[in-house]
Amino acid sequence: MTDTLVDKPSRGFEMAEFMRRCVAAQDVMAVHGLGAILLASEADIRYFTGFMTQFWQSPTRPWFVILPAVGAPVAVIPTIGVPLMQACYVSDVRSWASPAATDDGISLLVDTLRQHLGTSERLGLLMGRETALRVPLRDIFALTTALADIEMFDVTVQLQQIRMIKSPAEIAKLRHICGCVSDVFDGVPDWVVKGMPLSEVFRQFKIKALQAGVDDVSYLVGSAGQGGYRDIIAPPTDCALRNGDVFMLDTGSVWDGYFSDFDRNFAIGSASDAAHAAHHCLYDATEAALAVTRPGITAKDLYVAMDVILRPDAVSAGGSGGDDVGRYGHGLGIQLTEPPSHTNWDETVIQSGMALTLEPSILYGNGYLMAAEENILVTETGAELLSRRCCRDLPIV
Amino acid sequence: MTDTLVDKPSRGFEMAEFMRRCVAAQDVMAVHGLGAILLASEADIRYFTGFMTQFWQSPTRPWFVILPAVGAPVAVIPTIGVPLMQACYVSDVRSWASPAATDDGISLLVDTLRQHLGTSERLGLLMGRETALRVPLRDIFALTTALADIEMFDVTVQLQQIRMIKSPAEIAKLRHICGCVSDVFDGVPDWVVKGMPLSEVFRQFKIKALQAGVDDVSYLVGSAGQGGYRDIIAPPTDCALRNGDVFMLDTGSVWDGYFSDFDRNFAIGSASDAAHAAHHCLYDATEAALAVTRPGITAKDLYVAMDVILRPDAVSAGGSGGDDVGRYGHGLGIQLTEPPSHTNWDETVIQSGMALTLEPSILYGNGYLMAAEENILVTETGAELLSRRCCRDLPIV
Repeated sequence: MTDTLVDKPSRGFEMAEFMRRCVAAQDVMAVHGLGAILLASEADIRYFTGFMTQFWQSPTRPWFVILPAVGAPVAVIPTIGVPLMQACYVSDVRSWASPAATDDGISLLVDTLRQHLGTSERLGLLMGRETALRVPLRDIFALTTALADIEMFDVTVQLQQIRMIKSPAEIAKLRHICGCVSDVFDGVPDWVVKGMPLSEVFRQFKIKALQAGVDDVSYLVGSAGQGGYRDIIAPPTDCALRNGDVFMLDTGSVWDGYFSDFDRNFAIGSASDAAHAAHHCLYDATEAALAVTRPGITAKDLYVAMDVILRPDAVSAGGSGGDDVGRYGHGLGIQLTEPPSHTNWDETVIQSGMALTLEPSILYGNGYLMAAEENILVTETGAELLSRRCCRDLPIV
Repeated sequence: MTDTLVDKPSRGFEMAEFMRRCVAAQDVMAVHGLGAILLASEADIRYFTGFMTQFWQSPTRPWFVILPAVGAPVAVIPTIGVPLMQACYVSDVRSWASPAATDDGISLLVDTLRQHLGTSERLGLLMGRETALRVPLRDIFALTTALADIEMFDVTVQLQQIRMIKSPAEIAKLRHICGCVSDVFDGVPDWVVKGMPLSEVFRQFKIKALQAGVDDVSYLVGSAGQGGYRDIIAPPTDCALRNGDVFMLDTGSVWDGYFSDFDRNFAIGSASDAAHAAHHCLYDATEAALAVTRPGITAKDLYVAMDVILRPDAVSAGGSGGDDVGRYGHGLGIQLTEPPSHTNWDETVIQSGMALTLEPSILYGNGYLMAAEENILVTETGAELLSRRCCRDLPIV
């Protein structure tokens, strides 16, 4: 169980932590003969350098970091970011006044890449699942043209593998944010009342989460409806909660850049037998996943453990697996969702130090959807709950 | 001046608004012989369909929308988004269970694109400044290979031009959020006190903004330092505010998906003459920009109007313009920053209905940076302030 009496962890990381992360990437580079790896997205740049800013919300300027074969990363960034980047784990910061009229950093990037590639003809890039370069397509084409003699090598699987295993310092942050959010969810029945608009529930939840110590309620979605809800990613309506509503809040809250991601379901006044049964089934599916969690199983094993509880008929009929949500959970860390995915096709081996969500979902009644989510840490022997386990019975407010 | 006594605008838009936006894009398509436009990023998909969700924070699944030559958009999206998308301005929603093992929507997208391209050999894409496709590079390459016979035509300038001119309904939302945030900033001197950690100032600011009615404090950065600050994009430290600190809060707060983006500077106890002079200079630069704002000038004209106040020596010496921040303001809307950029190279013609920031910045003293920002609406005759104008004198708390 989460112990919220532990001391609040410290912010930031020791530089040695970033060094370890970079060395792990450099081991990959050595195996595959890469002269450098180019990063151009928020999470990856933050992971390897510690550069953390909400300024990424401005789409105007591109940002680049090069992981060289040896040593600390090299940043190629707009001048506005230099003071913050200089305090990060970097050996060199090169900058230009951005936004620029025509060449918005690309020639500086190419020059710097050439210097670090040396005689290597292979550049590592994130090109696969769950990645996206935050660079205009025109500039991506300009880059590949300027580096036409260089092979672009996809390092998605390798870098995701590094990021999946959390360090003790990362785990402390995840444990802290999940503990804070558990406290906030525990308090929901004390202040949510019939007649409150869902939008007001959201607003109050955010305020109470900030008061409880989270830095940001970056993600808050939810739904409410008579007998159940059908959508799990929508912003709130102004509709008032009514007797017989089932409602769900799902939050990705952040502390020092690390996410919680779990939800809670509630019913107003009363709930149908079908809603109660759905909640029981979700709880039991999570229990089944918790029971099998240990190093050496796969993300698919977690999927299967939940799916036999959630859809026994489909499974016994050889159902193909995968529901409308697409998966029963995922990795957790500096992004709301990270690899792996608990699906019938993800054979990622579960290892000690992974932070995961268990997120079974079920269709019931007249097209209602219910999802229940917990956050766990994989240990040497099993699973530690980061979120405080919900009750098996659907709570009535 | 902002009149915060006006009624709160309604959430969402009439479907006719999305139709007008799509027809404007379809006019561009007709001019350039495009069979369709492909969108694959949050802001653009939201702009043309109304699809609004924080679920974009999960990088797992790609999302696509096709603007056909005639009629409402066609969505090609993960099944998890179908209920929300069906309530949007779309004529067709095609979906697949995502994340998928191998083909994560690309073949469905190609089939759907082919159908809408018909005999056209030209597809519109956002490829330019301030854009990025939220799609793995591997899938971008798969798409361009599958459509090797189709010319990719960059529609960045044309779609940005459409988005730059705000409708009355959009303006109402911008006016509302800027009014809310003005109220919150006005209250800062009532609760910020010497000794309060900057991180706690941030937390309290977020709580008060939510209490004042904003939906999210999506962006909050700031700095504090003796005599001045040097960084304007960093997260807060836990350092306590001291006598003689100059501190700045800059927020992009959101209501119904529309951003404010302005800041305020304060001093604790007292401030140096240099800090006072910097604040006066920034105020005067904004006044100069306000004085010239009218339809027909350019973003560059706004830059020049501010630069002659901010850097008279550099300007008289033929200075090249552009400081470390790179510009003196930008567009505002459904993203924290939007085109145009007030730089010495952006010749975008300012038009009635544009929402802009005026954001002069100045270097002073021992390497200190100060930035001051206001939000305005361009009218037929000049400028309307959306933010409540700051005082010329640096406020002492």
